[in-house]
Formats: sequence, structure tokens, C-alpha cells
Amino acid sequence: MQVIPLQGLPRVRKGDDLARLLVESGRIESGDVIVVAQKVVSKAEGRTAEVRSAEDKLGLALGEAVRVLRRRGSMVITETRHGLVCANSGVDLSNAEEGTAVLLPLDPDASARALLRQISHLTGASPLGVVISDTFGRPWRRGQVNVAIGVAGFEPLLDLRGARDWYGRELSVTEICVADEIASAAELVMGKSRGVPAAIVRGVEGIVWGSGAAAGIVRPPAEDLFR
Amino acid sequence: MQVIPLQGLPRVRKGDDLARLLVESGRIESGDVIVVAQKVVSKAEGRTAEVRSAEDKLGLALGEAVRVLRRRGSMVITETRHGLVCANSGVDLSNAEEGTAVLLPLDPDASARALLRQISHLTGASPLGVVISDTFGRPWRRGQVNVAIGVAGFEPLLDLRGARDWYGRELSVTEICVADEIASAAELVMGKSRGVPAAIVRGVEGIVWGSGAAAGIVRPPAEDLFR
Repeated sequence: MQVIPLQGLPRVRKGDDLARLLVESGRIESGDVIVVAQKVVSKAEGRTAEVRSAEDKLGLALGEAVRVLRRRGSMVITETRHGLVCANSGVDLSNAEEGTAVLLPLDPDASARALLRQISHLTGASPLGVVISDTFGRPWRRGQVNVAIGVAGFEPLLDLRGARDWYGRELSVTEICVADEIASAAELVMGKSRGVPAAIVRGVEGIVWGSGAAAGIVRPPAEDLFR
Repeated sequence: MQVIPLQGLPRVRKGDDLARLLVESGRIESGDVIVVAQKVVSKAEGRTAEVRSAEDKLGLALGEAVRVLRRRGSMVITETRHGLVCANSGVDLSNAEEGTAVLLPLDPDASARALLRQISHLTGASPLGVVISDTFGRPWRRGQVNVAIGVAGFEPLLDLRGARDWYGRELSVTEICVADEIASAAELVMGKSRGVPAAIVRGVEGIVWGSGAAAGIVRPPAEDLFR
């Protein structure tokens, strides 16, 4: 499997044709999954807002939330409209113009599908996958990792129910979240301070092409032991 | 970045020289991180136990735990002696002989350091990293992902405090858990039912070689909003 940074992307602004910029910055081939940082998707879609203070930012975060799980100072852990649990509803000031915050896309799966459609059209490559990634903390473990908040073109969860191990015994693992693992793999070549907001992941073993969406990764409250 | 499965490894048994098996199954080069599934490390170390029933398994899981966070039927979410929060303290029956459960290594960081030392000795390659990976669920998101439970040879957390973004602003992300991202990237070529328990991750951007350990990934209770 190869993970290839898409370098030389210009700073993205509202209205930019992000699909074209991605296609121009790398050689996208059939079978590739293109991972794009949420930040540039949101900017292209104009999902930004003015912020003058920490209170402004907190107000934006609360406006994007359906529920507040934890609060420490001006930082909140929230559940967003999309069902994502993250810091400040994903509202972030880094890699944005002064006085500007970037919000999550309104519908990251729709954003991923639109990018997939446009990249397919421009390149003729098929199958293709698109992941929109963001950097989330998690309980119990230090450090943040990239996860998939938008998915198009493949199934984000690899269903192993009924699969057998080397010894012919049923696996206790039932589902692998390949979309999150792809987002994490891509982060290893992207980097926040190097200005590489996209990467190609090529050659994922056993990927299932299809019409999956990141909405399917959100654990239903009834299944969730930690809600 | 390349992620290369180490194929053709035989079934590992207690006392096997795992470092030699890994070296023989692939071409390890300077700068590689070798990711090894916890299961084979535990087997080589003889960390297995007899199980006759679900009650036996639950007993083993509780014996490995310092705290039970949640319980559903015979499944428990526990905190292990290592500070890992996972299902059944990592006790698992799949990819093990009939009537046998595999437990986590007593000290996965020590296991990683021993593998690193032996692989360095056998290959002469330097620097090298080793990750011992396991497959964990997480709150709020469906599907499991591979994380690092043992680390040697590099810093598992990439410290971005004070780093600047493209616009010269301080990043809001402070630490990336590259070790977990490396474990996840490797999982995409390993697979539970294909019998590929190890992979090389080659060319991680910005990796910091050093004497880090996975124990450093465990979030101290005082910092943890979800403990």
C-alpha cells in the first residue's frame, strides 16, 4: 500500500474548484482513495465565520452542537449535528485567516460524494474513494488521530461477522473501521504545519467499493456503552 | 510512505524467535517501523491460558483488569494493568488454538524493545521502530481500529505545541499519536482472516526516533475528561 502526499496545492478559498486542484496536484489512478483535510473542504464551501474572541468561538461551537458532553474552560466536547463527538464541534482557528474560524461542512458525506463525482469526471478513473478527514482526540489515550468525517465510493466499515481466523474459528472482531484507518494513514504524510491537506492511499487490502457514508460510522445511541 | 505486509510467517508458538521470523519474512531497511500484531507476540511469550467456557474467559479478563468501566452480558470494558481501556482486557480466543485464550503481553513496551534490539542485531538496520498493535473499539464510533500497545525506537506522540500553521498561527492541535496512526495504517494490509500478523511502515513523515514507549500514550487520569 502506498500513501502519497498531494503537494503544491494552493491556499483554498471559497468557491475554488477543489476537485480540479486535487486532480492537478497528483496522478490519481483507478483504485485510489483520496483523503482531503476537512479544513480545505470547508473553506472551498465557505463554511467559515468571524471570531473576535474565545467567547465568539465557544458560541460558534455551541451553535454547531446538539449536546455538550464535557466542558473545561472555554473548551467543550460536543456532539455535532452529524453525530460526531469532538472538541468545540470541530470549530477551529488554525490554518485559517486571522479573525476567521472554520466550521465542519454541513454534510461531509455529500461533500465527499461531490468530490468523488467531479474527480471521476476529470480523470476517468474508477473505482475511486474519497475521505474527508479531521483530527479528533479520544478518551483514555493521549494525542489526536485523523478520522473520517465524510466518505464516498467505498464501505467505511469492513464487516467481518462470520469470518474465520487461521484456525477456522469465528473472529471476535466484527467490524474494522477502514475509513478511519485510511484517514490515519494519510495523516502520516500530510501534517498540519507542512501545508499538505490531501493524500492518496493506494492499494488498501480488501477494500469494498460501494455507496458507504461516514454517517454509518456514528454508533447508534442504543449500542453505545459510553453515551 | 509504503506499507508492506510481511507474508509467509509461520504459526507462532511459545518460545519461537519472533525477531528472526520477522527478519526472514521481509526486507527490513533503516528507517522502517515494524508493526507486529499483539497476538503473535503474546504467543511467542507464552501468554496464553486455557478456557473452557465464557465464564472462564470473563474470569481471565477480570484477572487482567484493574477496573471495570462497563459490562454487557459476558463482555466487559476494562482498564488493564497497562492503563489500556479495551474489551475483555484484551483476552481473545480468535487466532488461537481450540480451548486457548491469548492474553496481552505483561509489558508490551518491553516486548517491543526486545524485538527492536534483536531485529537491529540481525539486520544491522538503524534507526528502526517497533509497534505492537491490537484492535480496539472506541466510544461513539462503530468499528474497531488498530492502536499501538507497545512502542520502541521512536516517539509515539508528535508534539506540535508551539508549531505554526501555514498562516503563522499557533496550531490548536497539540499532539498527534503517530504510533496509533502507524498501527492503523499497518492494519490495512494485515487483516485478521488472512494470517498476516506483521507489516513494515516505511517513510513516515517527521517521525522522531528516540526512546518513546506506548505507556506514554495512556492519558493520566487527571487530564482525562472521560475517566
